[in-house]
Amino acid sequence: MGGGDVPIGFGVVGAGTIGRVHVRNVAARSDARLCWVVDVDRSRASALGEAHGARIATTLDDMLADPAVHVVVIASSTDAHEENVLATVHARKAILCEKPIGNSLDGARRCVDAAQQQGTIAAIGFNRRFDASHRAVHDRIRAGDIGGVESVHIVSRSYEATPPAAAHRAGGLLREKGTHFYDLACWLAASDPVEVYAAGDCLFDCGYADYGDVDTAALTLRLASGALATFSFSRRTAYGYDETIEVFGARGMLQSERLRPRGVSLYRGPRVTADGIDANWYDRFAPTYAAELDALIAAVRTQSPGDPSLVDGLRAQAVAEAAIESLAQRAPVTIREVWR
Amino acid sequence: MGGGDVPIGFGVVGAGTIGRVHVRNVAARSDARLCWVVDVDRSRASALGEAHGARIATTLDDMLADPAVHVVVIASSTDAHEENVLATVHARKAILCEKPIGNSLDGARRCVDAAQQQGTIAAIGFNRRFDASHRAVHDRIRAGDIGGVESVHIVSRSYEATPPAAAHRAGGLLREKGTHFYDLACWLAASDPVEVYAAGDCLFDCGYADYGDVDTAALTLRLASGALATFSFSRRTAYGYDETIEVFGARGMLQSERLRPRGVSLYRGPRVTADGIDANWYDRFAPTYAAELDALIAAVRTQSPGDPSLVDGLRAQAVAEAAIESLAQRAPVTIREVWR
Amino acid sequence: MGGGDVPIGFGVVGAGTIGRVHVRNVAARSDARLCWVVDVDRSRASALGEAHGARIATTLDDMLADPAVHVVVIASSTDAHEENVLATVHARKAILCEKPIGNSLDGARRCVDAAQQQGTIAAIGFNRRFDASHRAVHDRIRAGDIGGVESVHIVSRSYEATPPAAAHRAGGLLREKGTHFYDLACWLAASDPVEVYAAGDCLFDCGYADYGDVDTAALTLRLASGALATFSFSRRTAYGYDETIEVFGARGMLQSERLRPRGVSLYRGPRVTADGIDANWYDRFAPTYAAELDALIAAVRTQSPGDPSLVDGLRAQAVAEAAIESLAQRAPVTIREVWR
Amino acid sequence: MGGGDVPIGFGVVGAGTIGRVHVRNVAARSDARLCWVVDVDRSRASALGEAHGARIATTLDDMLADPAVHVVVIASSTDAHEENVLATVHARKAILCEKPIGNSLDGARRCVDAAQQQGTIAAIGFNRRFDASHRAVHDRIRAGDIGGVESVHIVSRSYEATPPAAAHRAGGLLREKGTHFYDLACWLAASDPVEVYAAGDCLFDCGYADYGDVDTAALTLRLASGALATFSFSRRTAYGYDETIEVFGARGMLQSERLRPRGVSLYRGPRVTADGIDANWYDRFAPTYAAELDALIAAVRTQSPGDPSLVDGLRAQAVAEAAIESLAQRAPVTIREVWR
Repeated sequence: MGGGDVPIGFGVVGAGTIGRVHVRNVAARSDARLCWVVDVDRSRASALGEAHGARIATTLDDMLADPAVHVVVIASSTDAHEENVLATVHARKAILCEKPIGNSLDGARRCVDAAQQQGTIAAIGFNRRFDASHRAVHDRIRAGDIGGVESVHIVSRSYEATPPAAAHRAGGLLREKGTHFYDLACWLAASDPVEVYAAGDCLFDCGYADYGDVDTAALTLRLASGALATFSFSRRTAYGYDETIEVFGARGMLQSERLRPRGVSLYRGPRVTADGIDANWYDRFAPTYAAELDALIAAVRTQSPGDPSLVDGLRAQAVAEAAIESLAQRAPVTIREVWR
Repeated sequence: MGGGDVPIGFGVVGAGTIGRVHVRNVAARSDARLCWVVDVDRSRASALGEAHGARIATTLDDMLADPAVHVVVIASSTDAHEENVLATVHARKAILCEKPIGNSLDGARRCVDAAQQQGTIAAIGFNRRFDASHRAVHDRIRAGDIGGVESVHIVSRSYEATPPAAAHRAGGLLREKGTHFYDLACWLAASDPVEVYAAGDCLFDCGYADYGDVDTAALTLRLASGALATFSFSRRTAYGYDETIEVFGARGMLQSERLRPRGVSLYRGPRVTADGIDANWYDRFAPTYAAELDALIAAVRTQSPGDPSLVDGLRAQAVAEAAIESLAQRAPVTIREVWR
Repeated sequence: MGGGDVPIGFGVVGAGTIGRVHVRNVAARSDARLCWVVDVDRSRASALGEAHGARIATTLDDMLADPAVHVVVIASSTDAHEENVLATVHARKAILCEKPIGNSLDGARRCVDAAQQQGTIAAIGFNRRFDASHRAVHDRIRAGDIGGVESVHIVSRSYEATPPAAAHRAGGLLREKGTHFYDLACWLAASDPVEVYAAGDCLFDCGYADYGDVDTAALTLRLASGALATFSFSRRTAYGYDETIEVFGARGMLQSERLRPRGVSLYRGPRVTADGIDANWYDRFAPTYAAELDALIAAVRTQSPGDPSLVDGLRAQAVAEAAIESLAQRAPVTIREVWR
Repeated sequence: MGGGDVPIGFGVVGAGTIGRVHVRNVAARSDARLCWVVDVDRSRASALGEAHGARIATTLDDMLADPAVHVVVIASSTDAHEENVLATVHARKAILCEKPIGNSLDGARRCVDAAQQQGTIAAIGFNRRFDASHRAVHDRIRAGDIGGVESVHIVSRSYEATPPAAAHRAGGLLREKGTHFYDLACWLAASDPVEVYAAGDCLFDCGYADYGDVDTAALTLRLASGALATFSFSRRTAYGYDETIEVFGARGMLQSERLRPRGVSLYRGPRVTADGIDANWYDRFAPTYAAELDALIAAVRTQSPGDPSLVDGLRAQAVAEAAIESLAQRAPVTIREVWR
C-alpha cells in the first residue's frame, strides 16, 4: 500500500441499508476514497454512489479490475456473499464482509480457505466488537478485573421486526442476528464454542414458522473453557433497540448496560420517569461502523490480518448452524470445529 | 380460629439458620405467639427457644398435641420434611414448609396429597414472592403493563458458597436454590412448566461433582404459554448476593434490578464508584420472611389456602427433578405434571 | 454506669411524633429500659407509655428523681426544651435533646453552658449524621477520597408541608429544618460556619409569611475553611421526601444520592419508569434513630461526651439565627461564634 | 434569502478553539458554505480556513463586502465582540455571536440596540439550550410536567482550569462561564432575573485573585416569578466536565443528569465501579454546536429572529455584571433591566 498518506480506495458491493452506512463512512474520511458502488440494481447504486463521486456498476468485474480499489466491502445479500468474497480474493483486494459469511457452513468455509490460501486481509463485519462499552468490558476482562469468565448473558432485541421473508433471506434469527453475539461471547470469554442448545418459538408472528424460523429464542452455549453463555433474542421490542451484556467471573462481574442517550429524569408521584434507550440499532451503534473502518484501514496500512477476521466469522457461523439444527431437533448439538 | 384478636400459636421445627429467622419473626409479632421450638439437638432448640419463652422438644409429638399450636413451621433438614409435613397434616395444624418439600418428587407428592385430602392450610416458603420489588414486577405484569410475557431471565448467585456436602444435603443447586426461581418464573408468567434443559459444571470447586452437583448452571425452561425462561445460577460471587429478574413482554419490559442499600457515589478520575449490593441473601430479603408470616396468618384467620401453596412447591420441585435429570443426560427433559 | 450488662434506664419527654419514635426504639432494645413517658397531656403520655410498661407523668419531677433513669430524651415542644434541659442537667442525667435546642440563641447557649459546667453527657438529635449513606460520605471525605472540601450542596424537601402555625412552633423552616443541614455541612467539611445568606419566599402558601417564615429557601454558607455550602429547602414535594448531598473536593466528588427502596423499572415506549423515593422522612431515616441510641448508650457506658453534642446543636443554631436575620435583612449575616 | 436550496454563506471571525468548532460544523453541512475565515493572525486563519476552501482575511471588511456571506459567526476574543457585531450589523448580515457579548454591559447594550434598530437576525452562542437533555427538561416544564418552577440548581465545573490570565481575558468565571447558566435558569423558569448574590473564593489557585476573579463560586439568583436559582461553579474537577440541572416545581422535579458516554459497570467486592462522565465540555456538548447552526439557518431562511437572541445574551450579561459587583461588595445586587 505504500505510504500512509495515500487514501485507501474502497469499493462497496450492495447499496442496501448497511451498504449505505459503509458508503457514508468511507466518503467522510480523509484517509479513504470511495471509488465504486456496485449493486445489481443500477439505479440504487447510482442513487447512493453518485452523490459521493463514485463509479457505478451492476457486477464486480470492473471494480475488481480497478487498481485504485484496495478494499472491497461486501454488503450484498447474504446469498451473494460467497461469490463476491471468492472473486475479491481472486482479485487480491482486502475484504470487509458483512455477516453472516453465507447461508451454509460449507460455503463460509470455502471463503475462509480461499482467503487463507491467498493471504487476503479479510475482516468480518462484527461491529459490536467496536462498541466502546462492549470493548471496555472485553479489555477489562483481559486485564483480569473479574478473573476467569464463568458465565455470559447477552440480550439482543430488535426494535422493529424484520418481516419473515426478509428475515429468512438475511439468514434467520439464529444466523443473521445470532452470529454477532456468538462471536461476542467467544471473544469476551476468549474461548471456542463446543455445544449449543437453542429453544425458540413464534410468540408474536407465526409467519416466521413458514421459513423454519422463530421470533423469540433462548440459547445456551458451552465454551471450551467450561464457561456457559446464554442468549435472549427477540425480533422486536416496544421500547427501542435493546442490547446488553453481563459477564460473570471468579472475581467480579462486568456489564455493558443499557445506555440512555439523554439524561432526563422526572420525579413525580411515586415514580421516576427517565428517557429510555435508543430507538434503533443504528442510533446505538453508528460509531462502531466508523471504528470498524479505522481498524481495517490500519490493517491494510500495516498488512496485518483483519480483526475480527473471516475466521471469526466462520466460527460464529458454525455456532449458528448448530443452533439451527438444535432448534429443529430440540436437543443440544455439538459444534463442528470447521474454523480450525 | 375465632376472632382476630387471639394470637396465632406457632411451633417451629428446626433451629438452624432459617429456623432462627422464623423464630425471631414470630416472636416479634403481637398477633402471633411462639409456643414450641423443636430440634433433634435439644441444646440448639433451647438456645433459640428459651429466650423467647417457647417450650422445647426434640420430636414433634408434644407440640402437635398442644392445642395452642395452630401453625407449624417446618424448617428442619430437607430429608425430614416429608415426615414432618405428614405428621403435621395428621395433627390438623396449618403448615409453612421450607423449600424444597423434599429430596424426591414422590415424597413431595405424598405431602401434597395428604394436605389436600385433609384440607390443610399449607404454604411453601417461597419468600422471594414477598420481595417488594419482585412482587411489584408481578403485579404490574398482571396489570398488563408489558402485555403477554415472552421471556424471563433470572439471576441468582449466592455470596458465599455452601460447601459441597452441606449443599448436597440441602438438595443441591438445581433443587435447593432452583425451586425458588422456577416458582418465580411460573408465577410471573402465570404459566406451568413444560420442559427444562440444564447445563452446568464445576467451575471453581470440583467437590460438588462428588455429589453429582455443579457450582454454576444455565437453564432454559419452556412454559405452557410458550414463554421461555432462562436462569443463571452460581454458588458464589465476589461482590455480594446477586439476584435480578427481567421479564420481557409484547408491550414492554420489567426489571427487578440490583438494589443498593446505600446511595453513595464517588466521582474521581475516569470512574464513578458506588456502594455495591447487599452482601448476603438475608440482608437482601429479611423483610420477605415477615411478609410471608403476614400472608400465612391472614390465611389462617380466614381459613383460606396458603399462597404460595404446597402445590406451588410441588410444581417447582417437578422442574427441579427434571433439571437434575437434564443435567445428567445433557438433553432437555419433559416435566412430569405431578402437581395437577 | 457500672457493668455493661445493666440496661440503661430512659425517660422520654414529649409523646408527639418524634417522642413515639424514641419510645418504640428504646422499648425494642435489650440493653435499654423505658422507665417514664412524660407529656403535658397525660392521656397522650399514657397511650404511648403504658403499652411499653413505662410510668406516666405530666411533669419531669418524679422522673428526674427516679434513680433508675439514666438518660432523658427531650422531645417536647421546642419552647419547652430549655427548661427541660436545665432541669435534666440539674438532676445529673444524660440528655438526648431534639433539635433545635430552643427558639433563641441565648437560651440554647444557657443549655450548653449548664451542661458543660455539670459535665453532662448531652447529645443533640442530629439523626442525619447516622444515615448510612451520609455517614459513608463523611467517612470517605475524612479518608481523603476527595481531597479538601470546596463546595457542598444539600437538598432537603419535605413530602407534606407542615402547616404554618405548627411549622412556626417547631422553629420555622430555617431553624427547625435548617439546623440538621447546617450541621451536616460543617460536619462533612470539618469546618465552622462564618457567614450565611438566605433567600426565600412563600411560593405555594403565603400563610407562612404570617409568621415571618417562608416555604422555599436557598442559602449560601461560608465556612472557615473557605468552602461554600448551598442549601435548597422546600416545605413539600409532589414525589416523596427528598434529601441529597453533594460534596465537591479537590480530588473528586461524593454524593449521597436519592435512594429507591424498590428496584423496579419498566421499559415501555421511549421512557423508563422506575419506582421513586421514599414517601416520607421516617421511611427514609427510621434506622438513624436506632443508630442514634446506639451511640448515646455507648457514650453513657463509657462516660464519653455525646456525639453529635449539644455544642454541635448550638453551632447549627447560630447559623439558623443568622439565616433568619439574613432573610429579613436581605443581606449576608456574620454568624456569632457562641459555641466556642 | 430566497429558496431553501441555496446554501447559506458563512464567515467566521476568530480561528481559536470555538472558531474551529464553527468552521468544521459549517463546512460539514450541505445547506451552508464556508466563505471566509477572519483572524488577526493570518497564519492561524489560513491553517483553519484553507483546508475548507475559505477565503482568508485579518479584518472583517472584505468579508462584510462579500454578498455571498449571509451570516457572520463572531468567535473572536471577547474584547473584539462589540466592534465585530456593530460592523456586521452595519453590513446587514445575520449574526451568531459567542458569549459574553462583551466585557461591559454598556457595550453589550450598544450591540443589542444596533441590531434591533437594523432588524438584524442576531443569535447568541448559548449552545447549552441545544443540548438534547437540557432542552427536554425545558420542553417538559413548558408542557406542565412539574407545574410552576420554584427552584433551579445548576452545576458547572470545568475539567481543566483555564489559567488566570486567559480566564480574565475571556470574561472571568462569573461572566464567561456564568452567562450560559444564568440564561439557562431564566429560560427554564421562563422568568427574568431580579437580584443576584455571589459568593466565591480562590480555593485552589490564588492567581485568579490578581484579576479580581475566583476559582469557585456559589450564586443565588432571584427571578421575577419568585423562583430561586442557585449555581455551583468550579474552574476544575478531578473527574471530567460536570454539568447538571435540577428544576423543582409544584408538581414534580426534573433533572438533566450526569450522562455516562459508556455503559460499563464492574461489580467487585463491596463496590460498583462505572465509567465516568465525559472528560471535557466538547465531548459533552459537540452536537449542540451543530444544532445551534440548524436553528440559525432556519431563522435566516424564514427571516425570523435568532433564538436565543442577542437580547437573551444581554439579559444574561446583566446578571453577570451584577454578580461581579455582588462578589466585590459581599452583598446581593439588584440587576439592571437593560434588556427591556
